[in-house]
Amino acid sequence: MRTLTLELGSRNYPIRLGHGLLANPHSFGEARGRACRLITDQNVAAHYLAPVQKALGLEARHCLILPAGEGQKTFDNAGRVLDWLLESQLPRDGVVLALGGGVIGDLAGFAAAICQRGVDLVQLPTTLLAQVDSSVGGKTAVNHARGKNLIGAFHQPRAVIADLDTLKTLPRRELLAGLAEVIKYGMLGDAAFFAELESNLDALLALDPATVAQTVGHCCRMKTRIVEQDERESGARALLNLGHTFGHAIEAHVAYEGWLHGEAVAVGLCMAADLSHRVGWLPLADAQRAQALVKRAGLPARPPPALGPTRFLELMGHDKKVKSGKLRLVLLKAMGQATVTSEFAPHLEATLEQFCGTAA
Amino acid sequence: MRTLTLELGSRNYPIRLGHGLLANPHSFGEARGRACRLITDQNVAAHYLAPVQKALGLEARHCLILPAGEGQKTFDNAGRVLDWLLESQLPRDGVVLALGGGVIGDLAGFAAAICQRGVDLVQLPTTLLAQVDSSVGGKTAVNHARGKNLIGAFHQPRAVIADLDTLKTLPRRELLAGLAEVIKYGMLGDAAFFAELESNLDALLALDPATVAQTVGHCCRMKTRIVEQDERESGARALLNLGHTFGHAIEAHVAYEGWLHGEAVAVGLCMAADLSHRVGWLPLADAQRAQALVKRAGLPARPPPALGPTRFLELMGHDKKVKSGKLRLVLLKAMGQATVTSEFAPHLEATLEQFCGTAA
Repeated sequence: MRTLTLELGSRNYPIRLGHGLLANPHSFGEARGRACRLITDQNVAAHYLAPVQKALGLEARHCLILPAGEGQKTFDNAGRVLDWLLESQLPRDGVVLALGGGVIGDLAGFAAAICQRGVDLVQLPTTLLAQVDSSVGGKTAVNHARGKNLIGAFHQPRAVIADLDTLKTLPRRELLAGLAEVIKYGMLGDAAFFAELESNLDALLALDPATVAQTVGHCCRMKTRIVEQDERESGARALLNLGHTFGHAIEAHVAYEGWLHGEAVAVGLCMAADLSHRVGWLPLADAQRAQALVKRAGLPARPPPALGPTRFLELMGHDKKVKSGKLRLVLLKAMGQATVTSEFAPHLEATLEQFCGTAA
Repeated sequence: MRTLTLELGSRNYPIRLGHGLLANPHSFGEARGRACRLITDQNVAAHYLAPVQKALGLEARHCLILPAGEGQKTFDNAGRVLDWLLESQLPRDGVVLALGGGVIGDLAGFAAAICQRGVDLVQLPTTLLAQVDSSVGGKTAVNHARGKNLIGAFHQPRAVIADLDTLKTLPRRELLAGLAEVIKYGMLGDAAFFAELESNLDALLALDPATVAQTVGHCCRMKTRIVEQDERESGARALLNLGHTFGHAIEAHVAYEGWLHGEAVAVGLCMAADLSHRVGWLPLADAQRAQALVKRAGLPARPPPALGPTRFLELMGHDKKVKSGKLRLVLLKAMGQATVTSEFAPHLEATLEQFCGTAA
């Protein structure tokens, strides 16, 4: 087991990475002996609910099993989770455990954030995406008809316990979706890591334990450093949104159905790289490397065919990253060097035409 | 105009107290020139919406007018407010203005806290209760069937602008309800202020401008000092809940209808004083002074007749102040000296019998 620490003064917390953690009572230091409520989804419950219940001595009535899928991340559902937490008489000094991927982490995390103005949260991420990204850093949210994650809160967990064995039961498509966020880390902040991914991709796809541990650990370390600098996303943290404004537009277009978040982000990474090249920053060869890696990882590199450039631009305007009416995007000055900018017109239209125009 | 500052490092904010502030564009430094959305209720809108709109140059479509009353403070209603904020395309760097009493401040504040993970909030309290208590300190919440304020967030405002002239149009009953919180400050932390209230009550009830300004300012200063010490209520801030666990039980019993929050708190103050006497701390004379002042202020000193001691105790158990299954109460070591304790059995039953028993 490897332990990283996210340093936030009095709110420091450990991120434990390793194999077999969910079945091991010693993984759960922050939650043991306290009043716990666990929230998970049907897919994850089938594999991991029993071992976690056993490790923590959790009664079945203190476990809530939701349907799976991004469609669960609604304000109304958050209300249902809160009803359950409050009806179960969770004390203010109790703990909510989020066992699952990004959807469960975001939904249960949001409920924990606003239950009694905040109860403790322990993240038990079971997908690659949740392990490298969404479980770390305290962002919680639900979606709204106007856009993704538009309702939420910053609520740092007390611990993140990432059992790498869970990736073995993860559907292939979800594993690949998580890879999009892994590729993102290389593109936004670490060209050497990006080059490593180009070399290691096959080992990673084969779930070679050492490669998985090294890769997940590297992403978590990058994320903790960024969150430590900028917890509330007033600066550097925005770089983690590389590809996301494009991706969120795709997700809104398909109403969060049929596309996984990571798949939409994969397209977004390709579009951000393309635009970064058009504004004269990123060499063409690097934009092509990004797209090639996305494709090699079995991820989509183009938006759904029915999404035209005009509608795409409109959907991008709903994103939270809009500031004072001005669209801002994370673009690449170079491979491994992202920046937030609103200076990209008129090249954005060219990128949209390229990716979702009639040229498609 | 008098300006106090609540000091929270990078999140310091001003509390402006004075006459005619709502009609004066210079009051609104933090909001002027920014994208604003105002939330208020029908009663307050009738008196103050027009001047605030004029002072801020606010369009009618950027003002949301809700029905009045504690019944509005629900999770579903927070969802409706969020729908409105998001449909109106409030940018992330926009400002939500809460124009009204505690209900509007709590509801609009909660919506601002979770809209895009937190947008700026400016509190414009128009009731005595909101001016001396709820608008200051960053607590926001909605109610739940299981209890009061069980869903919420800490979200400090950017400014509090308290126009003391609004008390002139405040229904008498609401003014008296606010007095309960004023009396609370004296009881929990300042015996001299309590004695002043005993002398000044008539001037305060007559809304003598100097007495009002001095009293509201004193309460705000006490509140800022407590919040500065303990923003998240891990210690001293809990003292502000003097009388509230009793009061919340009454509010839950009547389903937040027919009783104002301050009226329930008034009863709670009398019950807390009685219990503080029974455990051997507060001299009988001081418990009697508390009850006498509550009564002189035209406030109720007994729970509703239908609420028996067994049900009362059960409702108290739903309160957020319960920790690890143990009921904790704020009681008085002496007049002006509150403490949190769970050492009051079996005297609590005697107090409940006294106030809502068959002896009534």
